[in-house]
Amino acid sequence: MNELKKVITLKDLWDARATLPTPIGLVPTMGFLHEGHLSLVKRARSELASVVVSIFVNPTQFAPTDDLNAYPRDLERDIALLEKAGANLLWMPTPEIMYPPDYQTWVNVDKITKPLEGKKRPGHFRGVTTIVAKLFNAIQPQVAYFGQKDAQQVAVIKQMVRDLNMPIEIIASPIIRERDGLAMSSRNTYLNPAERQAALVLSKSLEAAKSAYQNGERNAQILRVKMEEVINAEPLARLEYISCADYDQLNEIEKIEKKTLLSMAVYIGKTRLIDNEVLG
Amino acid sequence: MNELKKVITLKDLWDARATLPTPIGLVPTMGFLHEGHLSLVKRARSELASVVVSIFVNPTQFAPTDDLNAYPRDLERDIALLEKAGANLLWMPTPEIMYPPDYQTWVNVDKITKPLEGKKRPGHFRGVTTIVAKLFNAIQPQVAYFGQKDAQQVAVIKQMVRDLNMPIEIIASPIIRERDGLAMSSRNTYLNPAERQAALVLSKSLEAAKSAYQNGERNAQILRVKMEEVINAEPLARLEYISCADYDQLNEIEKIEKKTLLSMAVYIGKTRLIDNEVLG
Repeated sequence: MNELKKVITLKDLWDARATLPTPIGLVPTMGFLHEGHLSLVKRARSELASVVVSIFVNPTQFAPTDDLNAYPRDLERDIALLEKAGANLLWMPTPEIMYPPDYQTWVNVDKITKPLEGKKRPGHFRGVTTIVAKLFNAIQPQVAYFGQKDAQQVAVIKQMVRDLNMPIEIIASPIIRERDGLAMSSRNTYLNPAERQAALVLSKSLEAAKSAYQNGERNAQILRVKMEEVINAEPLARLEYISCADYDQLNEIEKIEKKTLLSMAVYIGKTRLIDNEVLG
Repeated sequence: MNELKKVITLKDLWDARATLPTPIGLVPTMGFLHEGHLSLVKRARSELASVVVSIFVNPTQFAPTDDLNAYPRDLERDIALLEKAGANLLWMPTPEIMYPPDYQTWVNVDKITKPLEGKKRPGHFRGVTTIVAKLFNAIQPQVAYFGQKDAQQVAVIKQMVRDLNMPIEIIASPIIRERDGLAMSSRNTYLNPAERQAALVLSKSLEAAKSAYQNGERNAQILRVKMEEVINAEPLARLEYISCADYDQLNEIEKIEKKTLLSMAVYIGKTRLIDNEVLG
């Protein structure tokens, strides 16, 4: 079993950080860890000298109507999983440490935050980029690992890192799925058994579009319609958006010519799920 | 004579940065250096293992009506002065390096950027905080030195550093003045001889207020009026704002009870000058 050092305050973090061998990898999380998170920790462990994990349910990336208070937590289980996965240092700051009373600084990424998730969740990416900048500054990793499931988040963070000259490599790791195809997410815990079954429409619709692509289909609208048909056939599902966009800047396209992101947000009952697939 | 390494690209900066002994001090400048800048470089030299200086006339902190294109430059002279002052590394990025075509990330500090300079120069501090964040990320200094002449800039940067968890100490060094009291500024070069003489009203008005304070005056409005009278007596001067505010958050005050900032912006002909004095 690996020894996992746990810290809360910024001072304790900096003291512990100073003793870690470099290069250091960071895996930022909101806790309630699943195999997706752990695959990032294990990958970082195999590639770098030290792995730091942060657990912080960041209030500024939730809208007032979002599930901040309901967001699932199980710190004891998370710690046991991180020890097993080989993390070296866990930072669990409180909201008061991250956002003291006179807090007033925000990192904004413009264009690439506008479509998809940014359109449906105003303010979400301002919260994400601000907290990730804070984590990067506080921990100073050489590499940071993110799950490809939040594909737009990865694109936004890469843009921020490039724009702000941060000396950090961003690695996106593939989506980890349950055996039946459902993308792993802490929010899957909200689903009742019927919803859990219905939630398969996300990965199924992506499979349908991917299969059409592999058979030579390059018309983006035809792929969107194929995905929509699968989602709409499921009574418990309500489509929020479906997208076929260029991978780098996330603009909707007509014809698939280079690396492309298929993505979607779907409500299953009251639970909002996202999923995506990269083509090309 | 000190050996000064000069770099332009981010890659060359990072290669050179990696060879510098730590701790590293950064002195960010817009060039056209005067004794104020050089006092920061010399102080950094005496306190730390290495000194990095940046010269970059940052377009995003100038409004369209500002003096970006007229801003004075003399790189050859700057380099000679930095060699003599003992700087180790000079970064002179181009605007294209700092703001490539798809650039889209901004650091915003809210409340403390609203009064004084922020009120008169909309967007100015967004440009300042963004470029300083970029310089900090690219250079990763342990300490950064700023001139107290830009008092609000110092307060804004301290707020940003605290809010974004940057592991950097911010040091503000006292205003360096000409023998007759004029605060040193690259913009003093715009003044013709009559204006140069008239520009003394800034320091004289601060002296008048300070002297009243030292004689026991604690009513902020009385100090403001004293300063205004000195400025208004000079035909070439046009007062833009005058302030007596609390030092930390820059709110205007009624009664002086703790550390206080007297500050002002005054047009001398077409040249906008600022000056300030800290009380208590």
